[in-house]
Amino acid sequence: MSAIRHALTTKREDDFAQWYQEVISEAEMAEESGVRGCMVIKPWGYGIWERIQRLMDDRIKAAGVQNCYFPLFIPLSYFAKEAEHVEGFAKEMAVVTHHRLIADGQGGLVPDPEAKLEEPLIVRPTSETVIGAAMARWVQSWRDLPLLTNQWANVVRWEMRTRMFLRTSEFLWQEGHTAHADREDAVEETLRALEMYRDFVETELAMPVITGEKPENERFPGAVATYSIEAMMQDGKALQAGTSHYLGTGFAHAAGIQYQDAEGTQQYCHTTSWGTSTRMVGGMIMTHGDDDGLRVPPAVAPHQIVILPMLRDKPEDEELLAYCEEIRKELAGMSALGERIRVLLDKRPGKATQKRWTWVKKGVPLILEIGGRDAASGQVSMLRRDKLWNDAAKANFVGMPKEDFLALAEAELDNIQSALFVEAKKKRDENITRVSTFAEVAAFFSEDKRYPGWAEVEWARPTGDELEDVVQQLKALKLTIRNTPLDAEPVSGACIFTGKPAVEKIYIARAY
Amino acid sequence: MSAIRHALTTKREDDFAQWYQEVISEAEMAEESGVRGCMVIKPWGYGIWERIQRLMDDRIKAAGVQNCYFPLFIPLSYFAKEAEHVEGFAKEMAVVTHHRLIADGQGGLVPDPEAKLEEPLIVRPTSETVIGAAMARWVQSWRDLPLLTNQWANVVRWEMRTRMFLRTSEFLWQEGHTAHADREDAVEETLRALEMYRDFVETELAMPVITGEKPENERFPGAVATYSIEAMMQDGKALQAGTSHYLGTGFAHAAGIQYQDAEGTQQYCHTTSWGTSTRMVGGMIMTHGDDDGLRVPPAVAPHQIVILPMLRDKPEDEELLAYCEEIRKELAGMSALGERIRVLLDKRPGKATQKRWTWVKKGVPLILEIGGRDAASGQVSMLRRDKLWNDAAKANFVGMPKEDFLALAEAELDNIQSALFVEAKKKRDENITRVSTFAEVAAFFSEDKRYPGWAEVEWARPTGDELEDVVQQLKALKLTIRNTPLDAEPVSGACIFTGKPAVEKIYIARAY
Repeated sequence: MSAIRHALTTKREDDFAQWYQEVISEAEMAEESGVRGCMVIKPWGYGIWERIQRLMDDRIKAAGVQNCYFPLFIPLSYFAKEAEHVEGFAKEMAVVTHHRLIADGQGGLVPDPEAKLEEPLIVRPTSETVIGAAMARWVQSWRDLPLLTNQWANVVRWEMRTRMFLRTSEFLWQEGHTAHADREDAVEETLRALEMYRDFVETELAMPVITGEKPENERFPGAVATYSIEAMMQDGKALQAGTSHYLGTGFAHAAGIQYQDAEGTQQYCHTTSWGTSTRMVGGMIMTHGDDDGLRVPPAVAPHQIVILPMLRDKPEDEELLAYCEEIRKELAGMSALGERIRVLLDKRPGKATQKRWTWVKKGVPLILEIGGRDAASGQVSMLRRDKLWNDAAKANFVGMPKEDFLALAEAELDNIQSALFVEAKKKRDENITRVSTFAEVAAFFSEDKRYPGWAEVEWARPTGDELEDVVQQLKALKLTIRNTPLDAEPVSGACIFTGKPAVEKIYIARAY
Repeated sequence: MSAIRHALTTKREDDFAQWYQEVISEAEMAEESGVRGCMVIKPWGYGIWERIQRLMDDRIKAAGVQNCYFPLFIPLSYFAKEAEHVEGFAKEMAVVTHHRLIADGQGGLVPDPEAKLEEPLIVRPTSETVIGAAMARWVQSWRDLPLLTNQWANVVRWEMRTRMFLRTSEFLWQEGHTAHADREDAVEETLRALEMYRDFVETELAMPVITGEKPENERFPGAVATYSIEAMMQDGKALQAGTSHYLGTGFAHAAGIQYQDAEGTQQYCHTTSWGTSTRMVGGMIMTHGDDDGLRVPPAVAPHQIVILPMLRDKPEDEELLAYCEEIRKELAGMSALGERIRVLLDKRPGKATQKRWTWVKKGVPLILEIGGRDAASGQVSMLRRDKLWNDAAKANFVGMPKEDFLALAEAELDNIQSALFVEAKKKRDENITRVSTFAEVAAFFSEDKRYPGWAEVEWARPTGDELEDVVQQLKALKLTIRNTPLDAEPVSGACIFTGKPAVEKIYIARAY
């Protein structure tokens, strides 16, 4: 096979942000919609999201959580009940004030002043308030607990600066909401959801993450504790890929979620909420993409294998297509990663190399190119997308007999899934640096380092003003505290901010 | 088994509307949300919708249509482009005018006057305009056609009178949108979607429907032709359960969807759109429900079989549960209707008869009651929900050896699916009456007939003022023209409205 050029014009090392946009555009995942802050998710991007939904939903259901659907609109008064919560969202919500348009007399349309709503409606930025109101109706006795619900929905947070998949005014997500009899059960659920996210993201998206608790200043508005999974992107920045909140009894008090315990006493529930969103797609791109475009882990690839016949617009094409179809059929009957293999035979007209680049940029895990001579001699030529470039910067197509490929295909997809995870974890681990003083933190993140990664430090977990002081110092360096890892070994040093004996480890990083 | 009482307090024949609400409430499918016109879809209702989504989505994908996601918000200017279309929707849209709230100084919140949008945003009532804008970007050449897209989304139409599942301000649906090179191809797609709906609704929801073209006055705003599937509810009213529109080139002109044909000439696309919604769930209830509650066709039942151990809170329970679990496992490994059987072992505490009624009201196709003596003797007791009441008004539980039931289960679920369809079709056909004059129409729908069904008449397909006159005459009797069936035999009589020679058959009915 001939040497092939890079598929993108921007390399990661030159301009990561530009590279990201280019991957999305060249892989035809999404595009600006013309509506401020909202994107159009195109078939390849949506296909990946559908895979994510299916696999996450299986886990949610397996945990005994039931899907429901709650209203898009939340009356203003619901929001006003939860003061601290509103504070956190009040600056970025879409407000519906009218329910009708009329002609403006100049050929245009305007909201009808006669159809002004008595109470404005908020387009949900998250659904704690409206789901809390439902829970208050559904929970009567301790027998009704735990109440485990989830919804797949669109939410809107008015964002000034948007970036596709990572931060858009409207995005798609799942939000789990649960009510429990006591603190212990609610905290357990919060951590169960977090572990579900870790397992999902690491297994299906092949993205290694750190599970941990967010610092006080980064808590979800109204939460008692917020936990996150944090992934490192290839530019060294952190991406919060999912969060799980223990909400205490605050939301239950606001919404009146009460139950009668076994002794007949009225008690307030302890609630949790947890969510992941289309943001995970952005994380997947920035974890696995290379200078040729996207690389999709097989578990979430809409097509795991694409067969590309090298059509020549000649009568022999018929034989070639028959050979390809035979392979397609065999593959479609096989399983990998616990499911039927998703294989596409791309019969569209067009030059084979151009078509190959289309699929390379889309990140299909395995590409099979098959020419007339291959068909005649029972061969195929296989490209593993995760190994597209070898050291000599040549495409590593591997030719082999059809039977060998069929015997290999299932294992190959499994291998790609693990290889992507191993590669990403190695990169991540290499880019976490232990740092002992604040001066070292500043040096570590100094301007001359392009993609510095994360600093691992010990601190005394300051609170209140002392914490605020730390946050401001970090902010001056464009840094944030990501989380305190849950599984960390005990610490022994001094807090890099206060000099007091440290109590735990945290990660510091620039973040999306 | 003992005789069992009716599960609902309202019978269909006494008050159909009240019965409908009661079924939804007793089956725990949905409830009012506290947000005007919006419902909360509860796990059982949402589980049915998830089944519908899955099965419909399979058909959509099999037709080569690709799922995308488009913005929730549509700028007012997009709407203003399509005059006729706006006219049809202008009276019922939610309008976002602000993007921030501020404190009102009295402890409440108000839209921030400083954060008024320059251009109001409409919460999509349907997405032709915003998808048309995307199509204009995506289509360049005849090679890009046909362009076949679909999205699963929530939409909002401000409704004054709402009824759960049938007419809510926010509802869930799928909307297909396609662009084609010419009229022929677009009309073919319109009819393909219609046939897909017919097949889906009849096969999976066991709801017989008439496929046909809507009269001119009932067309979708901006459409050249609108087709529908019409189902008859048990009160004789019609329910439009899905629509498919041939939009001509009107939307393409408004949005600029143009392509270069093979000869290099710029042409406007012919577009289509087609949709089905959570309304289908309402149709399913009113087609199959009986005086004991819901009956769910096995193809869309979240649980197809529920096993109810008759627990006695005694040590023997353990043996009983082991026996039940063994049966559950065997069933879970079997397939019916092309998929794995969905079976639940309901181990919750509580009286067996109460639990039985919970599942009867939810309409689970097969209920297995198993007591300690059954476990000891290898028996089960089976209830087919579709045959709950025999002529003697007794529950027809049938006892049999476990092995017999396991050998029977797959076929039994298939049988229930067909039996529900056959029963509904028989009822529907019996309630369609051929009528030859307008006076007969009036008599047929006279006040003393509770649930008259549909009238089948011939007409000359009047247009313009003549049609308007017909529509008004019917409106006075609270009647509408449903559709002109596609597969009708030629007609030979006179138009019941104008006396002219008839050209086709139509159905007249009261409708939801």
